[in-house]
Amino acid sequence: MITIAVDCMGGDHGPVVTLPACTQFLDQHPDAKLILVGLAEHLGEFAHPRASVVLATEVVTMDDPLEIALRRKKDSSMRVTVEQVKNGAAQAAVSAGNTGALMAISRYVLKTLDGIDRPAIAGQFPNAKGGATTVLDLGANVDCSAAHLLQFAVMGSALVSVLTNEEAPSVGLLNIGEEVIKGNEVIKKAGELLRVAAKSGDLNFFGNVEGNDIFKGTVDIVVCDGFVGNVALKTGEGLASMIGAFLKAEFSKNVFTKIAAIAAYSVLNALKNRVDHRRYNGAALLGLRGLVFKSHGSADAMAFGNALNRAYDAARNNLLGRVQVRIAQTAPVLAAVENLSST
Amino acid sequence: MITIAVDCMGGDHGPVVTLPACTQFLDQHPDAKLILVGLAEHLGEFAHPRASVVLATEVVTMDDPLEIALRRKKDSSMRVTVEQVKNGAAQAAVSAGNTGALMAISRYVLKTLDGIDRPAIAGQFPNAKGGATTVLDLGANVDCSAAHLLQFAVMGSALVSVLTNEEAPSVGLLNIGEEVIKGNEVIKKAGELLRVAAKSGDLNFFGNVEGNDIFKGTVDIVVCDGFVGNVALKTGEGLASMIGAFLKAEFSKNVFTKIAAIAAYSVLNALKNRVDHRRYNGAALLGLRGLVFKSHGSADAMAFGNALNRAYDAARNNLLGRVQVRIAQTAPVLAAVENLSST
Repeated sequence: MITIAVDCMGGDHGPVVTLPACTQFLDQHPDAKLILVGLAEHLGEFAHPRASVVLATEVVTMDDPLEIALRRKKDSSMRVTVEQVKNGAAQAAVSAGNTGALMAISRYVLKTLDGIDRPAIAGQFPNAKGGATTVLDLGANVDCSAAHLLQFAVMGSALVSVLTNEEAPSVGLLNIGEEVIKGNEVIKKAGELLRVAAKSGDLNFFGNVEGNDIFKGTVDIVVCDGFVGNVALKTGEGLASMIGAFLKAEFSKNVFTKIAAIAAYSVLNALKNRVDHRRYNGAALLGLRGLVFKSHGSADAMAFGNALNRAYDAARNNLLGRVQVRIAQTAPVLAAVENLSST
Repeated sequence: MITIAVDCMGGDHGPVVTLPACTQFLDQHPDAKLILVGLAEHLGEFAHPRASVVLATEVVTMDDPLEIALRRKKDSSMRVTVEQVKNGAAQAAVSAGNTGALMAISRYVLKTLDGIDRPAIAGQFPNAKGGATTVLDLGANVDCSAAHLLQFAVMGSALVSVLTNEEAPSVGLLNIGEEVIKGNEVIKKAGELLRVAAKSGDLNFFGNVEGNDIFKGTVDIVVCDGFVGNVALKTGEGLASMIGAFLKAEFSKNVFTKIAAIAAYSVLNALKNRVDHRRYNGAALLGLRGLVFKSHGSADAMAFGNALNRAYDAARNNLLGRVQVRIAQTAPVLAAVENLSST
């Protein structure tokens, strides 16, 4: 039995979205249980044989400063959800709330893994090879050192090798050119550290990649700081939305285009599935001593359901244990390389 | 008569692409002249009544370090092209060569405008409003201070107000959230400087924007450092390419999808035009005492032609003079705000 703790209050829509997603998830996974966390007035009427309710008295809002979320709202639905993982009641936690607050609370409650200074958010982007490119960090760390980027590479490799059973997935460093001389100082240094780690055989480092390589599928994992990763994520979402809206408007223009839309339905539907970011919803907070998944704040029930599925798959495949083993294996390299980076 | 100097050797394809684009440009603009710059063996046979040839003996390659491009190759086609603007023979220069080298050479040959420390690369992205969002910097500056970002805002405003005749185009600061507390230290400081400048009435500052706002068209101008801007640019290109390739493959699948493609032709063509980055080719190097336009290195003749068109429009509309006036107007604000930022 897999148990997932769900912050039912998080996100732009809260229980209106999270509760229907929870019901559907339970119906689809007969071996799963959910712990629903939220305010009494919203969860009072929820009933399912495999769901239990844990009440919280506060909610972290989208614009609560970290300080408030972490120090003042000690009984927030977000915090209580993460605590379910800490105390062993759940194998994973899911929230669509404030990303910064979720990261801060998760880090405070669960602590980071040995050898990891900063947890990172890892998400998936569809690529032209028909698969997905894992990108991290997507927004947890707005200022990263070269050593942090190396840690992200190790964590990302561990995640992907667990998810895909590939022994040595390839890692690219997001940069503004393929050449080694490109980039700012942190990126150049990170490139050096990654090359050293690759030589030791513990990391399959491809080299520098550019923004377009994310969607080309040049590498399995793209490493970047959280500011850049978040901009890339949202730029992609923005362009996909624009194209979707454009096609909708153009195909509804007149009777001819409407007929064309019917003829092209299967292709348009396939495209929608391919680039719909709701399908890729559910980013992993990596580097913590527990599994936490972040749903997009604007997720609808379908998207939130995907985040629940991801948490479920991760728990079922013992992602945490396997990531921990991989990180422990590369710990000597990380330590050696970091000594190098501080000299 | 408008004269444009063209680096015919730049880009991934060189003269094979640039020369046909030049011929077509001349045919389309009876009031334009071109100065073609390149190696004798490539330009020897080019003949057009409104084209003259200036020979160079060297070519800056895509992976030449700045040092080589700037100090060693003093007779490169790129440098000779920019010199045509400096010596008054041409009103604008266009090159598809190495971006860093073009910026370094332009800065060295032409110098920056008063009040501008660092030139920036400004390009256009299509947006959901049917217009274009101007984004800068797209890759000239990989490390920016808050004051640099403020200067980009002023230069971008000047560019857009000249191109669109809008008096006070809106400026957004690219960040990872709308809230003032979001972002790294440089971004938070830049936000403060922009708010001060906005209060003085010389800048229409909207506030923070996110990656998706580029394509939404939330603001006229999006300001960011060159690393982030370059990643956003290439991420968008990568996604657009992936979608294009996907549609092509899906519509060629079988006889039914092929018929659907014919039915949907007008819409697909409209989409292609809408997101085709070749249509938006030709980024302005802003902040210099002369007009220089950068074409994408991979540009084909159609795309390179668009870069020539942009240079032509800019020269015809006296972009340089008008940007200079706008920057001079905001000079007191820039100076005041920068004093603030250094305290």
